[in-house]
Amino acid sequence: MRNVTKDNITDVFLGYMSNETNPRMREVMSSLVRHLHDFARETQLTHEEWRTGIAFLEGCAAIETEDRHEFVLASDVLGLSSLVDMLHSSPESTSSSVLGPFHVSGAPPLAVGGDMKRHYGGPVLLAEGVVRDTDGNPISGATIDIWQTAPNGLYASQDQEQDTYSFHGLQTLGADGRYAFTTVKPVEYTVPSDGPVGDILRACGRHPWRPSHLHYIVEAEGFRPLVTEIFPDDDPYLDQDTVFGVRSDLVMTYVEKPASEFPEGMELSGKVEGTFLHVSFDVTLSAK
Amino acid sequence: MRNVTKDNITDVFLGYMSNETNPRMREVMSSLVRHLHDFARETQLTHEEWRTGIAFLEGCAAIETEDRHEFVLASDVLGLSSLVDMLHSSPESTSSSVLGPFHVSGAPPLAVGGDMKRHYGGPVLLAEGVVRDTDGNPISGATIDIWQTAPNGLYASQDQEQDTYSFHGLQTLGADGRYAFTTVKPVEYTVPSDGPVGDILRACGRHPWRPSHLHYIVEAEGFRPLVTEIFPDDDPYLDQDTVFGVRSDLVMTYVEKPASEFPEGMELSGKVEGTFLHVSFDVTLSAK
Repeated sequence: MRNVTKDNITDVFLGYMSNETNPRMREVMSSLVRHLHDFARETQLTHEEWRTGIAFLEGCAAIETEDRHEFVLASDVLGLSSLVDMLHSSPESTSSSVLGPFHVSGAPPLAVGGDMKRHYGGPVLLAEGVVRDTDGNPISGATIDIWQTAPNGLYASQDQEQDTYSFHGLQTLGADGRYAFTTVKPVEYTVPSDGPVGDILRACGRHPWRPSHLHYIVEAEGFRPLVTEIFPDDDPYLDQDTVFGVRSDLVMTYVEKPASEFPEGMELSGKVEGTFLHVSFDVTLSAK
Repeated sequence: MRNVTKDNITDVFLGYMSNETNPRMREVMSSLVRHLHDFARETQLTHEEWRTGIAFLEGCAAIETEDRHEFVLASDVLGLSSLVDMLHSSPESTSSSVLGPFHVSGAPPLAVGGDMKRHYGGPVLLAEGVVRDTDGNPISGATIDIWQTAPNGLYASQDQEQDTYSFHGLQTLGADGRYAFTTVKPVEYTVPSDGPVGDILRACGRHPWRPSHLHYIVEAEGFRPLVTEIFPDDDPYLDQDTVFGVRSDLVMTYVEKPASEFPEGMELSGKVEGTFLHVSFDVTLSAK
């Protein structure tokens, strides 16, 4: 097309794709470019704003490493990661939530009733529940890959003071589908805000905080894997999670109980002093 | 919002922006995120496709250098650069076109009638015209910053065989607004296609070619600067410029003429053998 205009350029783009283009590629690219062009037309995007956008991408590129995923973080704070997640969440299962960048594969086994707290101080949290199918029957042999922040608000992968699998554990469940472990109550924390994504948050008057949560990947043969998070209902950032991860069925009460009610058969090292927190959270998986 | 869903997440995003957010920032971010979310919802974007998108950005990041601007190239081949350009082009002036990544500032002076061809062989092209205001009056003291590819299809900034300002020149015009220079006819060339942007072009069955062109930045006091390109009407890629730069008023006939019609007063070194090409292209600038 030798007469490209601001009104026909989207159609010109679509016309450039060959007939052999993979149909899904065509569908995704067509939608992407239509929205990109509509965005520019609607906002009458200026050259200077375009340069700011390019500088943002180049700024992300400049700090991108194996341990710093600024493009993923951008997707997270713009809500894209959570949206993709929700689009493919099964309505019959427990809600899924974002995986985030802090999961480390290969966590060590954690017995049912085991302790992730180790030598760390802080409020003891006992988390337990049953993994069920959509009919309510326990699933035998499910696994729960559990991870969370240390009391300093850092994940093991961010913190040279912690070993690789600190606050990571893989629990394999029996025929009753029951899981249980003790840990330190997770704390709220900030996503990295010293890069270009932090600049966007500040420019929009937003904070970088996420509410505290336990993070699970629940898997069982014949069922769709589930990435999910459990939030306490008294967290100050519950209504303003900067990565949009909170779903209403994932918000639970962490009940404070006297030490005398701490159950038998847990592996917690040392004794509970005064009180402990207890959360009961059942997980429903949908079949594949 | 603790009950984020795929349907309300866009509103949740908008609600996160503080009241002190700069109004233009709010406008641009709102439109950007609305379109980004609508794109994901419309296509039911999968996790795997999202990962492909992130890998594309990380792949661009991996090859981004001072001389390789893969994010700009992505914007170019998606038509965004041309669209932003057209959105702010004055309807009264000659059409603008994309600046591209190959312009080098500080070109050496080129007298009116001067020669950019130097020792290079190939078809002699004489380009001339008048720079006028929107009433048709010549503009005194305008400058034209001219650049183009060498006969090998490379710009000086891409080619170690050329010096910095090879095929670059800055012409300052007199009271008659007339410019004129000789050069070698520019050739069509490919944008860099050995990176992630090349992968997209191939996946869409697109080629990386641009039609041949002379590239001008025309400036004069009191007028809006104009970046433009002049295309020959027999170029094979005129209807398929991979960066969407062709505008109908920028397509000109390069007329073949006998050597005997080559005008007096040009600085061309050596004689025209047989024939030369001639293009007459007047430029209209709009007032600031």
